[in-house]
Amino acid sequence: MYTITILGAGAMGSALSRPLIDTGWQVRLWGTWLDDHLLDAIENGQPHPRINATIDPRVQTYRSNQLQAALDGADVAVMAVASHAVNAITELALPQITKTKTLWLTSKGFNVAPNGQIQLLPDAIRAQAQAAGLQLPPIMAIAGPVKANECAQGLPTATIFACTDQDQAQHWAANTNSGNYAPTYSQDEIGVELCAAMKNVYAIALGIADGLETATKIPHHNLKAAAFAQAIKEMSQLCANLGGQTDTPYGLAGIGDLEVTGLSGRNKIYGTRLGQGQSAPQAYKEMQDLEQTVEGVSAAALAVRLVAQFNDPLLTQQLPLLHAVAQILAAEAALDVEAIISQAVLPQPAAPIADMVRIYGQDSGADKPEF
Amino acid sequence: MYTITILGAGAMGSALSRPLIDTGWQVRLWGTWLDDHLLDAIENGQPHPRINATIDPRVQTYRSNQLQAALDGADVAVMAVASHAVNAITELALPQITKTKTLWLTSKGFNVAPNGQIQLLPDAIRAQAQAAGLQLPPIMAIAGPVKANECAQGLPTATIFACTDQDQAQHWAANTNSGNYAPTYSQDEIGVELCAAMKNVYAIALGIADGLETATKIPHHNLKAAAFAQAIKEMSQLCANLGGQTDTPYGLAGIGDLEVTGLSGRNKIYGTRLGQGQSAPQAYKEMQDLEQTVEGVSAAALAVRLVAQFNDPLLTQQLPLLHAVAQILAAEAALDVEAIISQAVLPQPAAPIADMVRIYGQDSGADKPEF
Repeated sequence: MYTITILGAGAMGSALSRPLIDTGWQVRLWGTWLDDHLLDAIENGQPHPRINATIDPRVQTYRSNQLQAALDGADVAVMAVASHAVNAITELALPQITKTKTLWLTSKGFNVAPNGQIQLLPDAIRAQAQAAGLQLPPIMAIAGPVKANECAQGLPTATIFACTDQDQAQHWAANTNSGNYAPTYSQDEIGVELCAAMKNVYAIALGIADGLETATKIPHHNLKAAAFAQAIKEMSQLCANLGGQTDTPYGLAGIGDLEVTGLSGRNKIYGTRLGQGQSAPQAYKEMQDLEQTVEGVSAAALAVRLVAQFNDPLLTQQLPLLHAVAQILAAEAALDVEAIISQAVLPQPAAPIADMVRIYGQDSGADKPEF
Repeated sequence: MYTITILGAGAMGSALSRPLIDTGWQVRLWGTWLDDHLLDAIENGQPHPRINATIDPRVQTYRSNQLQAALDGADVAVMAVASHAVNAITELALPQITKTKTLWLTSKGFNVAPNGQIQLLPDAIRAQAQAAGLQLPPIMAIAGPVKANECAQGLPTATIFACTDQDQAQHWAANTNSGNYAPTYSQDEIGVELCAAMKNVYAIALGIADGLETATKIPHHNLKAAAFAQAIKEMSQLCANLGGQTDTPYGLAGIGDLEVTGLSGRNKIYGTRLGQGQSAPQAYKEMQDLEQTVEGVSAAALAVRLVAQFNDPLLTQQLPLLHAVAQILAAEAALDVEAIISQAVLPQPAAPIADMVRIYGQDSGADKPEF
């Protein structure tokens, strides 16, 4: 079986060790200089502090100064650090990553290229390799509805492996299926990465609906459901523009991941605070005080920049929920979030009868509708 | 403005009066012989017993023996009775329905035709009219993520009007948009009706995941999210087979309505009982004791019969979650619902490398994947 080195001992990196051990892999887990306390817990057989599950003792741990040893002879490397650290860790590990058969990516989000352009993480990593004159193995985008703590406990989990070389995706998906951890495969790296980054933005909107319920004691389920459907529609539109498959959001990567992210998680909780009437800065500060990173906040701002790169007014119109969330996040004061989200997700009034007359002309004949 | 007669004073029929009053319609609400206590409350200005909202006093109420007066001169009739009562009320109201401009349908589910075939409600109503030698006005299927109590309170609500004559759908959607009640329109009557009926079945699966969490104290969000994505996929497949649009489930009618149904409601609650370990008969009896109709139970059985009508083994394979739910509902004893739902919604293991060799042949050349 294969040897895999997971870079990053946080929630998702550590959780991924479970299905890999279950399927007979040799698993190495490398921690950054911020992960020492996590590795301490793992090595002492204590529950991982972020996922409240113990990590199998067969997982070999490596400290931040052991990166080379961790990667030495590995078949697969997994980038599983926080998205803002991907560039730095890639820089350190790149020479050895090039010796692996494939680089997996569970880190999610957008990257700002040196020229200021917004890009997806695989493109950022490829650009780094190119600048260094190095040849990367195939990149595998791994996403879908995976809460790390459930994955670490071996609970039923569906996921998706995406690689532009679909045979690669199929091969590695087949070799990690433990029964309860069940990957499907796709060739749509762009769509899978985009959904993974955007779901945190849209989960804030779902949280806002939950917060309105908390504040008013009246469920706002109709609004939440409309926001959910609109979010998927916007992801599909963005996929179209970025060159991904428009149907990727309709599966595990979109519907599935947004569902799981809207059920719990930091982005949804942050949104709930906004729905309860907190201003964006206030809600953000309180999350920070709890050491809770809200990835959707930076992702929303970067997504708006990404959209602006297309310089296409129509596209902007097609993404009202993204822009509504970004507007709320950018405001210093608390806004009327119910009105703003409603405006973004409720269907606009259908064209009235006058428009229909224009469509058919005044003498449209007897087979046209009469009201 | 138009005069509309809503047939059925239950939750959805009564709730629909709110946007219609808000947009200036003349609203008549007719109750069946089972609705007298509901009409009593409405007439006395008390909250509607099923939706805990008061109905606008401008709504004119009609008792079961006033059907003719209720429909006399109405522009629009709305069928809003329980799905099993649609045939009977159609029979009574048919002569006057033929005099309206359009028949709306908020009742949802499957119908068993006299020949035993399973059909969608619009087809059932059309067959009744044809048998009576009467000409129906255009039928408007109304569905989407609408919890009646929120609609009745004027909270933000998106919905969808579907008619094979899309101009009709557009016209009536435009004339009912109150701002907070916001219909979009579609020509896909089949897809909208199918999603509306099936979402109750799939909400049981979502409830099962919730029940597993209650029973084990460990969230099963990954499973719930995978079930959500699988449900939408299966709705799309069914749309394809029934002649609907495969993308209808990807919008308000599918994603939206399943989200709202999975957040609360009787079908989800029933599923939660199953997830907690109750047998299907036990859970059903306890719901009945609480006077809670679980529409998904009969819908699941009818959907399985509908699928069997196609006599297509491939289609059956493509609907594992439907059949998993039906299997659980048909069993006398409590089953291992976690295993059954997991089996249905987790991706099956990808083809291993041996299959790939078969695909490419043994001498596939250097450009094929190496592992």
